[in-house]
Amino acid sequence: MQTFRYPAPSQWADICRRPTINLEALSQTVATVLDDIRDRGDEAVRHYTAKFDHAEIDDLRVGAEEIKEALSSLDPTLLQAIHDAHRNIAKFHEAQRFTGLPIETQTGVTCQQHSVPIEHVGLYIPGGTAPLFSTVLMLATPARLAGCRRIVLCSPPNREGRLHPAILAAAHVAGVTEIYRVGGVQAIGAMAYGTETIAPVSKIFGPGNSYVMAAKQHVSLDRVAIDMPAGPSEVLVIADDTARADYVAADLLSQAEHGPDSQVILLTTSERLMSEIEAEVERQLNMLPRRDIAIKALAESRIVLVHDTDEAMALSNAYAPEHLILQTADYEALAEKVVNAGSVFMGPYTPESAGDYASGTNHTLPTHHWATAYSGVNMDSYCRKITFQHLTQSGAQALAPTVITMAEAEGLQAHANAMKIRVTSSNPETPE
Amino acid sequence: MQTFRYPAPSQWADICRRPTINLEALSQTVATVLDDIRDRGDEAVRHYTAKFDHAEIDDLRVGAEEIKEALSSLDPTLLQAIHDAHRNIAKFHEAQRFTGLPIETQTGVTCQQHSVPIEHVGLYIPGGTAPLFSTVLMLATPARLAGCRRIVLCSPPNREGRLHPAILAAAHVAGVTEIYRVGGVQAIGAMAYGTETIAPVSKIFGPGNSYVMAAKQHVSLDRVAIDMPAGPSEVLVIADDTARADYVAADLLSQAEHGPDSQVILLTTSERLMSEIEAEVERQLNMLPRRDIAIKALAESRIVLVHDTDEAMALSNAYAPEHLILQTADYEALAEKVVNAGSVFMGPYTPESAGDYASGTNHTLPTHHWATAYSGVNMDSYCRKITFQHLTQSGAQALAPTVITMAEAEGLQAHANAMKIRVTSSNPETPE
Repeated sequence: MQTFRYPAPSQWADICRRPTINLEALSQTVATVLDDIRDRGDEAVRHYTAKFDHAEIDDLRVGAEEIKEALSSLDPTLLQAIHDAHRNIAKFHEAQRFTGLPIETQTGVTCQQHSVPIEHVGLYIPGGTAPLFSTVLMLATPARLAGCRRIVLCSPPNREGRLHPAILAAAHVAGVTEIYRVGGVQAIGAMAYGTETIAPVSKIFGPGNSYVMAAKQHVSLDRVAIDMPAGPSEVLVIADDTARADYVAADLLSQAEHGPDSQVILLTTSERLMSEIEAEVERQLNMLPRRDIAIKALAESRIVLVHDTDEAMALSNAYAPEHLILQTADYEALAEKVVNAGSVFMGPYTPESAGDYASGTNHTLPTHHWATAYSGVNMDSYCRKITFQHLTQSGAQALAPTVITMAEAEGLQAHANAMKIRVTSSNPETPE
Repeated sequence: MQTFRYPAPSQWADICRRPTINLEALSQTVATVLDDIRDRGDEAVRHYTAKFDHAEIDDLRVGAEEIKEALSSLDPTLLQAIHDAHRNIAKFHEAQRFTGLPIETQTGVTCQQHSVPIEHVGLYIPGGTAPLFSTVLMLATPARLAGCRRIVLCSPPNREGRLHPAILAAAHVAGVTEIYRVGGVQAIGAMAYGTETIAPVSKIFGPGNSYVMAAKQHVSLDRVAIDMPAGPSEVLVIADDTARADYVAADLLSQAEHGPDSQVILLTTSERLMSEIEAEVERQLNMLPRRDIAIKALAESRIVLVHDTDEAMALSNAYAPEHLILQTADYEALAEKVVNAGSVFMGPYTPESAGDYASGTNHTLPTHHWATAYSGVNMDSYCRKITFQHLTQSGAQALAPTVITMAEAEGLQAHANAMKIRVTSSNPETPE
């Protein structure tokens, strides 16, 4: 781990430095596949599934029978854990339901926001060695609560053309309405453009490798919305003298095992803790199955000694971490000072993994400095706030001078006329 | 206007067709200017301002003296209208302020959303023949209410290097903190990358020509967030037999005068109204200063005769209009059925221009089918909802089995360990 002791403000940019992501380099490859999906539909989806996933797929859609099998084949302890996590996630997201009230901005002029679910949403779940069924819960649970009509899930099949039972079980529990054994760029293309089998969606959610991310970016330019831009996962821990080295080390490692490009940063006010944590990291590291990945991530990680927790929070806000863990005595006061972060974990008993799985918060969060401008996935991500307004005849009369003056000053006479005609002509029979 | 009578569902796609927007064609030109702004800062900004705006700019920032002058030089009636509109916009947006409550998802596990303002936002206001000071109010008012620290406004100068006094007045009233006489791609580049004079922002808002839109799209890929994708403005009116032809015609024209690519659609259940509205459009059109623009837009506009208002609403939802005007007897019931729209104008006395200027709703809205997935600008646009969570020692104990089971099933042992270490080790002195 790279160590900084009481860095000058001029060193902050260096501490906050992230690896460059260059999705542009992939854009030609990705565009070719996307165009092919758009032009040839299912045929192209099957072609790329054979090529990249080494699976020959007959029926792209996963049927009810296969889901039923998955539910009965799954370890009951795991199925129970999925249900328990789903319950907490649903409870926290249900509390985010929005109801707009009518606001009379002036007499006879009433405005209101209504939250309306996006009709068609698509969720991408990566394949690979481990089945990311937790992400299924995180993306599908609020979609279902929001009331999205179609909740489409795409995930790459294994060589036998099947999805992991835990993914199917989580999709079932969370309320996914359509499941397809399609992954990679071809899944993004199918959800964006539609094929004979897969109807298009209006917004695509979920993580993926750099090809998937480049494909999401590409289709977001002219076709569908996406949840947020991409970047490797990251954690920043602020620890003072009251923190336990073994807890902090465990938190750093749980981030480091994600991938070799994971970002891990520790800011501490305690010189003693610095060395203790480094020793604990060494000790715990050796017991990890994903040790090699963690070692690579740790090589790029940073430990920074700062004067006080306020300085630590200022540096954290400059970095804008996806995950921020506060292991300090003053964690409640410190939490009030968070300006840029995706999700915050407060106190000694709140590891990031609690929120990754089951506390109830969403784990789909902005990385790579995007926390400065984006929220993590939440109920709003699945809704539009549509505005409604109503003017009574006298409300129109009262508002007209303002509208007419402004429209004429902007040189938009027809805008002014649309107001004028309503206040100069009379029609007592028209109901308000 | 193109006329469709009781179209079959197979014709809906044709009715909903929009002009293709190809910003990709501009991407090379735009990228060159953006790179130059990133590399040479103010010097490049001045270069492109001289080249495109024909203005030699010494001081990029507009000073307090110039704003004071603008306020005193402005027609008092217009200044009052700006204040009145601002009051309504502020009242409606203030009501959108979000306060998240702590939710105990299970005993000892508490989650909460906090809405935190984006620190640095940039507002782009186009130049051209008319000063779009109404857009200044729409973008800056919620930014100020949200609590954004820096609210940067960029707008192209005239040949004398000055901004229109109405823009400066609106910026002052709404609470903009920095104003720069910089427009076009160079403004987007300056706000995204920063220059010696203009510090970078985290999110850019506002309309613009196709070069500005392409530039926003370009910088959104790796640098800043943007409000929403681009497209020409559009209105869809649903009118039944109770609607007045002159009101409807005025509404159609107020959209048509925006630009030759404006989209104007009328859905009506009344055959009589079809011809009356066409006659009224002809009559009112001849009095408009922007007649030539409106004629071009109307050539591409559509009048559709439908069986009932439910069919009209289904077609409207398929089109997903930016502005939706309901001039029907059942407008209240009909409004409940809106699924895809930016903003809805209900009843005979609610023209679109009311919302364009002063009812209180925001006029920065999703066009070009983006209403299927995006909201118009609102208070949320200027905030992040950051999640916070806290586990008590017993809360961690209770949640641990779920987290450990799921983490191990996903092959993430360090994630499991971060939870295990907190429940198997004991440390009674650590405060919760």
